Amino acid sequence: MNFTIGARCGAARAGRIETAHGAFDTPAFMPCGTKAAVKGLDPRELREAGIEILLCNTYHLALRPGEETVAALGGLQKFMSWDGPILTDSGGYQVFSLAPLRKITDEGVTFQSHLDGATVKFTPERVVQIQEALGSDIIMPLDEPIPFPPDPKVARLALDRTHAWWKRSKSTKTNLFGIVQGSIVPELRKESAQAIAAADPPGFALGGFSMGEPAAQMDEMVAYTVQQLPDAKPRYLMGVGMPRDIIAAVKAGVDMFDCILPTRMGRTAMAFTSEGLLRLRNAKFARDERPLDAACGCACCRKFTRAYLRHCFAVDEMLGPKLLSLHNVHYYGNLMARLRSAIREGTLEKVTA
Amino acid sequence: MNFTIGARCGAARAGRIETAHGAFDTPAFMPCGTKAAVKGLDPRELREAGIEILLCNTYHLALRPGEETVAALGGLQKFMSWDGPILTDSGGYQVFSLAPLRKITDEGVTFQSHLDGATVKFTPERVVQIQEALGSDIIMPLDEPIPFPPDPKVARLALDRTHAWWKRSKSTKTNLFGIVQGSIVPELRKESAQAIAAADPPGFALGGFSMGEPAAQMDEMVAYTVQQLPDAKPRYLMGVGMPRDIIAAVKAGVDMFDCILPTRMGRTAMAFTSEGLLRLRNAKFARDERPLDAACGCACCRKFTRAYLRHCFAVDEMLGPKLLSLHNVHYYGNLMARLRSAIREGTLEKVTA
Repeated sequence: MNFTIGARCGAARAGRIETAHGAFDTPAFMPCGTKAAVKGLDPRELREAGIEILLCNTYHLALRPGEETVAALGGLQKFMSWDGPILTDSGGYQVFSLAPLRKITDEGVTFQSHLDGATVKFTPERVVQIQEALGSDIIMPLDEPIPFPPDPKVARLALDRTHAWWKRSKSTKTNLFGIVQGSIVPELRKESAQAIAAADPPGFALGGFSMGEPAAQMDEMVAYTVQQLPDAKPRYLMGVGMPRDIIAAVKAGVDMFDCILPTRMGRTAMAFTSEGLLRLRNAKFARDERPLDAACGCACCRKFTRAYLRHCFAVDEMLGPKLLSLHNVHYYGNLMARLRSAIREGTLEKVTA
Repeated sequence: MNFTIGARCGAARAGRIETAHGAFDTPAFMPCGTKAAVKGLDPRELREAGIEILLCNTYHLALRPGEETVAALGGLQKFMSWDGPILTDSGGYQVFSLAPLRKITDEGVTFQSHLDGATVKFTPERVVQIQEALGSDIIMPLDEPIPFPPDPKVARLALDRTHAWWKRSKSTKTNLFGIVQGSIVPELRKESAQAIAAADPPGFALGGFSMGEPAAQMDEMVAYTVQQLPDAKPRYLMGVGMPRDIIAAVKAGVDMFDCILPTRMGRTAMAFTSEGLLRLRNAKFARDERPLDAACGCACCRKFTRAYLRHCFAVDEMLGPKLLSLHNVHYYGNLMARLRSAIREGTLEKVTA
């Protein structure tokens, strides 16, 4: 993996990351193809939205269809017909949020599949193996999230375990990022950054954000954490977030993002637009002949009115969720393009959602 | 409306119908945009599948968003961003199949909306007005379906009422087809064809087929009914059907078809292919790297494997229903293109599903 920084604006950087499956510009947004599909959108539509890299989910894919099946079918890219880079998470977050009867030991975490109750064990070594079998370009180590608000003793234990697991995490086949945890405690974040950086990974993920902390506190803690990291490596803020969160984090020096919001909100009739968030189920749109966002050039905004989109949601036509997801991913793709341009032109302070 | 017959092969005809919103080649298949959306597919995808005309549903659209709203938004074409011809059914079939507490009198049919229980009345005059307000290019009169198997007394009363309603059905704004009923009784079909033809409509719909009668009986009765109709006007077999049904009806001289099957079966993981029907939920496809149909050039078959499509259905990803619907509509579009070519080349007998 090769990361080059082409321009700077304050702490922010515009760059480019090269992987075995192609390159992507940073700051980059990765739509979530949780189960090897970005909900409702095909690869052509993602490309048209300016998307260059996807995130897929290790927990879900290890359960179905299983990493061996994906490997037998030529890896994730070939499986889902996406000819660009893919990042996979470690699955740890899903184990802690979805799986019942989980048991954490120093060795790893044992849990029941939320699908069929089968007992599954994730260890630091195993999640690396799964992701290598999936064929992803950037992989994540197993970590233990710290619940918010953090209990000091729980946070201490979780952080120690995350760091111990990190020491056992190695990949000879692909790019393994380190994950910095530490909740909203500056000392823990600093300690974690140093512990992770000791192994000199090709990039750093910032975990444990957007857990319920106020936005201003998140902004501050993201900026503080970034300052503890080496300049030359990419930084990935996991699971974040709203456009305002992304803008703040880019200004702080973050290079990569993923979030379910554009597709999830699209499916629930909420659209990100240059006029703010629109709730398309609202009756006031019933005869609104304007496009969703006159400033957007996506197929949804070029072809359909707010009235029609509102109708699709009112009558439960799947074209509604599809078109709003398409638009929202365009909105995020366009936001990242605007941020990259603004960094190059030195106008980052002017960028708003 | 202008209908020209360009080629014949036995009783079959290949032609072209011109409407206010453009022309389409016949024999033609109309995907169902019941609620002003073909489930999961946008107009660009329909065009790419060779589709030239859509069907929309009067009953559903009269209830939501209401014909006045569609009219205020510039008509169905503009509303749903489809720049080609649209045919609407009369809504009668849905009244009889969906609406509770319906009461039929000579004047019309009063029913409760299946959505909110509101009392609605459809008369022969009103369904024409609704369809004119929707702005469709080809509209259908109110008729009373005959349940299958037909009870002689019920069939007689329904047919008399259908013919009485037909005499009250007039449109000065658009093309009003007549509907020939008569179930599987040759005498009734003949009588109905004559009663409908008396008003010299621009086209004839054949109603009351695919109601549970054996396929061979349907083929025979469709052929018999077509023989009772004037040669120079288009014939539309409503709600039919499977590829084999369409091929048989084209050979008998039918020009237009609509059916929910390509999208409905796509949503339930069933694909029409040159190898027959494939059930994509079947575990045997889990590692099948072949395209759905090697003989098909649609985006689904060009880009994805059976293994991936099966995975999408197994994990409930909406991309599965979307891609199979897309392929199935392509299959139908391609079937009609093959039928038109075969009529022109005199090789219709060789066409199979």
